[in-house]
Amino acid sequence: MINHFTAQDLLGLPSRYRANLINSCTGYKSCNLLATKDKNDVTNVAIFNSIIHIGSNPPMLGFILRPTTVPRNTYKNIKETGYFTVNQVHKDIIADAHHTSAKYDEHISEFDKTDLNEVFLGNFHAPYVKNSAIQLGCKYINEYLIQENDTILIIGAIEHLYIDEKTLHPDGWTQLDKVETVASIGLDGYALPALLDRFKYAKPDQQTESLLNKS
Amino acid sequence: MINHFTAQDLLGLPSRYRANLINSCTGYKSCNLLATKDKNDVTNVAIFNSIIHIGSNPPMLGFILRPTTVPRNTYKNIKETGYFTVNQVHKDIIADAHHTSAKYDEHISEFDKTDLNEVFLGNFHAPYVKNSAIQLGCKYINEYLIQENDTILIIGAIEHLYIDEKTLHPDGWTQLDKVETVASIGLDGYALPALLDRFKYAKPDQQTESLLNKS
Repeated sequence: MINHFTAQDLLGLPSRYRANLINSCTGYKSCNLLATKDKNDVTNVAIFNSIIHIGSNPPMLGFILRPTTVPRNTYKNIKETGYFTVNQVHKDIIADAHHTSAKYDEHISEFDKTDLNEVFLGNFHAPYVKNSAIQLGCKYINEYLIQENDTILIIGAIEHLYIDEKTLHPDGWTQLDKVETVASIGLDGYALPALLDRFKYAKPDQQTESLLNKS
Repeated sequence: MINHFTAQDLLGLPSRYRANLINSCTGYKSCNLLATKDKNDVTNVAIFNSIIHIGSNPPMLGFILRPTTVPRNTYKNIKETGYFTVNQVHKDIIADAHHTSAKYDEHISEFDKTDLNEVFLGNFHAPYVKNSAIQLGCKYINEYLIQENDTILIIGAIEHLYIDEKTLHPDGWTQLDKVETVASIGLDGYALPALLDRFKYAKPDQQTESLLNKS
């Protein structure tokens, strides 16, 4: 049975129902912890499911900040210091990762309120999340105001990438299920994917072929 | 064993390796088919893994277009007509969904080159993908040029949502694994997630609690 919602139906829904529905109906989202440190050395870590690929040459990512709902400490610290890290969330830390969305005072570090641990690598300003299998050290580059609803798209350059080598295929592709990376559904759901297949570059009038050795 | 890549290391990698690595290391991505119809009634369908949530009030989504690598027919048709649809990719259609990334001539419809079928619902200009469990009819609103690499963020308003009711929880949250929605890894990997848990709204100093009845 298919339910049909028109734009008018959607606008008439209770706001929590609409937020759940619209946040989850467009598919799985990436699930990462963003960590920062302010100028007084207070660290912060917060879950984000809006990290997107911007480009690989040079390597850049983006994420959306919703000023009214998302912890603003992350944004404040990024603007203040210029640096943040992006850390993969795996199966065993989803409860703590979710807890970082609680609204703590800005002088409290979520690292002190969870079993997540911070680790500093090299001379990088922002902390990484210890034991995360994929950790990116990023530098703030730019931001774009989405004027339709006052959200902000932040653009970051990837300056460091630490990655568990067991995820890495010989051509650079990263098999995320080898380290139990999770995906988000909406604002509060966490799912564990398993690889189905990986396909060769698609060409007109040629059948889709697997890149995996399934023997 | 952890591999460390600096920005300089990343820039020195072969471009295909770097593209695979950077596209996949930030986590799972949404997997959708975007369908359009041009002014001569030629339809087009293409896979996108960059659909993101922009807002729920009013309901809006976004996606990134890479002018150099992504089929430009989608962009041309959206600009020409103002409308597009976003259709969930499920397990059984990943090979055909992947094949839509082949570069066909603009007067050829990918619906004719795959087993994917188009369906028109209501008076909406753009076709939907038949049997997709979640289908969104969207109207172009705006675009933002990401000047760092000349990609474009397109913003669309959700005007229609068709959704299989078996995915819907009483509070609007959509359990995507009930309809075998897939997630993308990088440019060519497809994974099937299974729900791990869903948590209550996080509050300071309160333990993370499940929202699911696991009895």
